[in-house]
Amino acid sequence: MTTLTTQVAIIGGGPSGLLLSQLLNKSGVETVILERSTRDHVLSRIRAGILEWGTVELLRAAGVDARMDREGIPHDGCYLTDDELMVHIDFKELTGKQVMVYGQTEVTADLYNAQDAMGTTVLHGVSDVSIHDLDQSRSRVEFTHEGERKVLKCLYVAGCDGFHGVSRKTIPEEKRREFERVYPFGWLGILSETPPVHDELIYSNSKHGFALASMRNENLVRYYVQVPLSDKVEDWSDQRFWDEFSRRIPSEAANRLITGPSIEKSIAPLRSFVSEPLRWGNLFLVGDSAHIVPPTGAKGLNLAASDVFYLHSALTEAVTGKGTGGIDDYSSKALARIWKAMRFSWQMTTMLHRFDGEDAFAEQMRKATLDHLAHSETARRDLAENYIGLPF
Amino acid sequence: MTTLTTQVAIIGGGPSGLLLSQLLNKSGVETVILERSTRDHVLSRIRAGILEWGTVELLRAAGVDARMDREGIPHDGCYLTDDELMVHIDFKELTGKQVMVYGQTEVTADLYNAQDAMGTTVLHGVSDVSIHDLDQSRSRVEFTHEGERKVLKCLYVAGCDGFHGVSRKTIPEEKRREFERVYPFGWLGILSETPPVHDELIYSNSKHGFALASMRNENLVRYYVQVPLSDKVEDWSDQRFWDEFSRRIPSEAANRLITGPSIEKSIAPLRSFVSEPLRWGNLFLVGDSAHIVPPTGAKGLNLAASDVFYLHSALTEAVTGKGTGGIDDYSSKALARIWKAMRFSWQMTTMLHRFDGEDAFAEQMRKATLDHLAHSETARRDLAENYIGLPF
Repeated sequence: MTTLTTQVAIIGGGPSGLLLSQLLNKSGVETVILERSTRDHVLSRIRAGILEWGTVELLRAAGVDARMDREGIPHDGCYLTDDELMVHIDFKELTGKQVMVYGQTEVTADLYNAQDAMGTTVLHGVSDVSIHDLDQSRSRVEFTHEGERKVLKCLYVAGCDGFHGVSRKTIPEEKRREFERVYPFGWLGILSETPPVHDELIYSNSKHGFALASMRNENLVRYYVQVPLSDKVEDWSDQRFWDEFSRRIPSEAANRLITGPSIEKSIAPLRSFVSEPLRWGNLFLVGDSAHIVPPTGAKGLNLAASDVFYLHSALTEAVTGKGTGGIDDYSSKALARIWKAMRFSWQMTTMLHRFDGEDAFAEQMRKATLDHLAHSETARRDLAENYIGLPF
Repeated sequence: MTTLTTQVAIIGGGPSGLLLSQLLNKSGVETVILERSTRDHVLSRIRAGILEWGTVELLRAAGVDARMDREGIPHDGCYLTDDELMVHIDFKELTGKQVMVYGQTEVTADLYNAQDAMGTTVLHGVSDVSIHDLDQSRSRVEFTHEGERKVLKCLYVAGCDGFHGVSRKTIPEEKRREFERVYPFGWLGILSETPPVHDELIYSNSKHGFALASMRNENLVRYYVQVPLSDKVEDWSDQRFWDEFSRRIPSEAANRLITGPSIEKSIAPLRSFVSEPLRWGNLFLVGDSAHIVPPTGAKGLNLAASDVFYLHSALTEAVTGKGTGGIDDYSSKALARIWKAMRFSWQMTTMLHRFDGEDAFAEQMRKATLDHLAHSETARRDLAENYIGLPF
């Protein structure tokens, strides 16, 4: 059996695994990334597009800022609306900070290029991964690669393999505590090469349901509408999408709407999920492998980045013999921030969506929340501070 | 049939009717108050004890501030706790304002004395009230008093007769829109002549359920515990109350707890309720006749006071021929503030209570909300601004 050796084995070559690898290697820590899919497949996934400033700074520290700074679009604020009110949340004025519009797909591509330049090892097409000896001083990951069973010996394992990955499931079920909230609707999203309806994002709680007008660049939009979970992508022609989207956004935006063919269309369910703890012996869970947020509030990638922020310095300390305080604290430190982002994403989701069977009081509470935001700078600042990202 | 005449007929001699009458008479507008109960009965009701500063200032404008200033206790803040965190909300530092601890019973007594001094008419023991001709230039209230059917002719009618009163029901059902949320628990409250466990209020979301440690003065406390709606007062001996209360408040407070006999004990259900509109022809609803909040957040009396604030100037203008703009705007103006207080009370209630059958995620959201408050001055300021009262 082929044996490889490294300091940190990273399961999963999505943005969190790549960013962790990049930061560890820059600190002189060796890694090997094991990724199930091909690189092309990873780079074809359409995901989030809003980076908190802390994430932007972490990407700078990782040395993957050149294209982001050229092509990314800093946003100073966003809009929250219903059929009566349109509230501007001015991040810049309220917090002094911005967010960066730059697609996760682009971040991932930049990280792959940076890993190439550094000459790190990323194995693609890896299957049947199993993790062993997590309570020993040396741990081991077994996997199949190029038709051969291989073993990767390592000091630590980072589980960056997403919700369906093997890492979380390696922690015995009775040692995990899982928290979940499944929302009774999904987001139908399209990607279209058309100019954005507005230069900032619009989160719209219309009487026809939620819609989000977001953008990737001046000729690429990502628009969403809330749909029942029973809907299929095939139910939604481009025309039906544009009609529905158009009546859910404020008329001043709808009047500027330019439609075009969709180049991607998909339905994502909305879920809040956390698995505790994040550490099991030498295994550390990062990002989606331990927690999922609904997309309202754009926290998914950013939470993975803050996990990486805590973990890369903790692992560097541990590997270079500077102590294990960081890895001992990783789970509690990361979870404290995760739960606050969970709360924010849940609150944004609850505030902006219609729920089947809800009473008229619930609708009034949504209206009153928006009205309070419209009239209270403090309430807008609280939302802005959460949106641009709480401190690491 | 005995006929009385006045400018504003006020149905209900609780604090909102009395305060409205007091302010109207001070502006030269004549009133007659019709109250179902005896004065002693009205004065025996134990109610809220926290006055927003806007309410304090309105009571000053009404000339009923002397005893309040002597006996009331300004509070600079309050505490929110669970079993792990104790968060201080410093109203004074966060908003520059305070609240006043002064019982509704005392406010009501002061208002009766002020009405006596002014020589206004308050009829007690009034029954079978009906309101007529609300669409005419002169309206009329019929009622039974001292065994005799009487009629009160007036320009306007103020419905200050609470949730069960006749005023709201006078508006045809198809012209009202009602919103309601009934919470699946009640508050068991006791009044006891003992020194308070703490000099500021403690709202405690313990694992055994909610408790509130509040006080009236240095030797009179009002303490509450969340109980199932099926519980009866008889189920709760004083000893059982003290045991339960003691384990629901933080240990540093429980260690200082001095117990004593209860001088009042009652269970109140928790409800959010709003009826729209507040105006129907010459009838104007005020306070509990149109809206009920759960006690979490202490908004009940204060919302009635803000209704009175809007209505007394509107009615004064209308009666003195200065225009009807105020009464035309009363409903929408008052409701805008009412809905924000509804939102705050609902959020405080949701954040501080355990709900039967809730999932573990809901509990985590409560913990994360408290944790966010602990770490975010902005979040504390938002809570403080709502607690001390949004501007009129």
